[in-house]
Amino acid sequence: MANMKILMVICDGMADRPQDELDGRTPLEDASTSTMNKLANDGQCGLMNPIGIGIVPGSDTAHLSLLGYDPYEYYCGRGTLEAAGLGIYMKPGDVAFRCNFATSDENLTILDRRAGRIASGTDDLAEAINGLEIDGVKIIFREAVEHRSVMVLRGPGLSSKVTETDPHHEGQIAWKSTATEPEGEKTARILNKFTKLSFNILDKHPINQARKAEGLKPANIILARGPGGVPDIPNFMENHGLKAEAIVGITLVKGLCRILGMEVPEIDGATGGADTDLDAKMKATIEALSDNDFVLLHIKGTDVFGHDGDAIGKRDFIQKVDDELGNLIANLGDDVLIAITADHSTPVSVMDHASDPVPLLIHGKGLRSDMVENFSELEVSIGALNIIDGQELMLLLKGLAGWNEKFGA
Amino acid sequence: MANMKILMVICDGMADRPQDELDGRTPLEDASTSTMNKLANDGQCGLMNPIGIGIVPGSDTAHLSLLGYDPYEYYCGRGTLEAAGLGIYMKPGDVAFRCNFATSDENLTILDRRAGRIASGTDDLAEAINGLEIDGVKIIFREAVEHRSVMVLRGPGLSSKVTETDPHHEGQIAWKSTATEPEGEKTARILNKFTKLSFNILDKHPINQARKAEGLKPANIILARGPGGVPDIPNFMENHGLKAEAIVGITLVKGLCRILGMEVPEIDGATGGADTDLDAKMKATIEALSDNDFVLLHIKGTDVFGHDGDAIGKRDFIQKVDDELGNLIANLGDDVLIAITADHSTPVSVMDHASDPVPLLIHGKGLRSDMVENFSELEVSIGALNIIDGQELMLLLKGLAGWNEKFGA
Repeated sequence: MANMKILMVICDGMADRPQDELDGRTPLEDASTSTMNKLANDGQCGLMNPIGIGIVPGSDTAHLSLLGYDPYEYYCGRGTLEAAGLGIYMKPGDVAFRCNFATSDENLTILDRRAGRIASGTDDLAEAINGLEIDGVKIIFREAVEHRSVMVLRGPGLSSKVTETDPHHEGQIAWKSTATEPEGEKTARILNKFTKLSFNILDKHPINQARKAEGLKPANIILARGPGGVPDIPNFMENHGLKAEAIVGITLVKGLCRILGMEVPEIDGATGGADTDLDAKMKATIEALSDNDFVLLHIKGTDVFGHDGDAIGKRDFIQKVDDELGNLIANLGDDVLIAITADHSTPVSVMDHASDPVPLLIHGKGLRSDMVENFSELEVSIGALNIIDGQELMLLLKGLAGWNEKFGA
Repeated sequence: MANMKILMVICDGMADRPQDELDGRTPLEDASTSTMNKLANDGQCGLMNPIGIGIVPGSDTAHLSLLGYDPYEYYCGRGTLEAAGLGIYMKPGDVAFRCNFATSDENLTILDRRAGRIASGTDDLAEAINGLEIDGVKIIFREAVEHRSVMVLRGPGLSSKVTETDPHHEGQIAWKSTATEPEGEKTARILNKFTKLSFNILDKHPINQARKAEGLKPANIILARGPGGVPDIPNFMENHGLKAEAIVGITLVKGLCRILGMEVPEIDGATGGADTDLDAKMKATIEALSDNDFVLLHIKGTDVFGHDGDAIGKRDFIQKVDDELGNLIANLGDDVLIAITADHSTPVSVMDHASDPVPLLIHGKGLRSDMVENFSELEVSIGALNIIDGQELMLLLKGLAGWNEKFGA
């Protein structure tokens, strides 16, 4: 029998808890999900602790785990992942940070950590900072969505062993970075010079002058957090023996997949938000499957509604995803094993990630079924897959799809 | 309460997937198995990953695991197990190989790797080779079923760190063995001399002259594979504190059980195939239980039908096994805990081992029951035993049967 291709669908933060607004049902239970229910009914289900029992996963650490990597060994910091997601490829010795454009007064007291969620002009502001040098260290700076951006420091003697400059609360002065290990001292010094320099350059920039004139908050300082060094992660293809592509909108997961050496195409309309073009992503998935052994389809919107505390919105978005998955399934060959799951729970009532395990379904022609009839956090708990750890998922999928070699005779 | 005796019944490769020929049922589901169903209904069930999640087990590595040994630590190569199965007891420094009688031309090009599946005369041919010496190394050689045989090399400076001489494809010249580590150099040299010597002796042997005259393929060369050294495995009795016997037909599992120090009687009619005398094995099992704490009953036929892709044959054989188990159970005392399982899945649709977990049932007078009513891959998934790893099985059985000491007060 030929090996099956593997399609892993991750609906970010889809798993939830019972919500009053949904009469005590979870968004997934309350949604009409005929496609996922059919797959669950015909396939095998279970629960999964993305990282481990009781652990509250980040999207980045959870994705590492679900792709078969120990996040405690391979997590390289969010700055690095965001940089890779924006196409900045780090060299040995580089240090990356996630940054915010923020609003500051002359004393570097932070008035708004997101500069009024600035929506345009950050490309020009980034341009004014990108390429600066401080004490022989080069600043590579790139804008991302809204107030977000990424910075990579390049030069001798750098280290990610430093604290961040984002004070996390408005009304506080931008924090001074300090070294958490002696090798971080130079980096902390450069970072502190950079904070001041960013204010000096940005505050007088024409874009911010115009914002002030319009009564908008100027994006006149850069706050840095999530320092990360260059990752040393085994390539996905070498690790798993599978040619792989990821269909994903958000920078963080894009970055991770790129660092793992997966193909990550840019897809028009894949925004990484609730307004993403699901249809375009499904088409890209079908295309990716024709040329790969493994495809990761990542859908972010579910998580956004969880963070916003919007139960109805989350339910309706799940329903939309299910419709689109129906079209996808109709176009899948018999040679594709499909797994549908979440990277973590983002309960509407918590408005943040939680440690609750996520539901998992696996369906493939000729594979076993179990007693589960519908795909929900509640029902999958009697499934044949029982409860697994995220790091076991790839091994499980590869085994069922025929990729694992026999051990012994 | 007195400890119970433990009877572990392993139906080799019995676990399967839904099959079209059986209207989407597995052979075990489709078979009438009133005995196993009654035991499942009264007892406790679950699933088991014989070696670990996603791992495709061999029969040898899976049996190690189910008998409580880490196969990654104790697997010693198939040659060693086959040799022990044929009653050749290795001494420290010996190296064993599984061998084939094959057909070769004068240039040692292999024309048939199985010498036309030669059915008789290999005892005489083995006799012509057994006892030879090459550079002070003694050849111990024994015929097995059909074209199969086993060789043990005995002498100073040997090692199993060598490649095999079986080219695995017809039309190729017998491979030259090479050392995979420096300590294998002498063994590779001896093995290469042996390949030529085997041709020189066998090609002119009267049995092969007669075969050629009849138009049959001569069994005129020996191909060696699966090199194995002397195992260093803790004795079953010392490891588990249980006096043990194995009722088994096939050489590979016989060998493993002998290496573990279990009693392994020769049973007339136990062929290790679908034509085995199940009745004789059941009688031997009853007898073994009278004198032991632990009995392994191994039934190979289920696996054979899986490898042959024969769903109906597999179902019918399972039914036959169930009938015989009915007779067995009727003759068991109340003091026997019985566990029924498989060493791995051999789905008819895969025609080889697969990583799918196997069903497990445990039944003993006075032990708990669960919600499972029938013994099948599907139903046991809701059982109280949940899903365990093969290496946990002995501990579980010994615990339930009363053999484990209290830890603490």
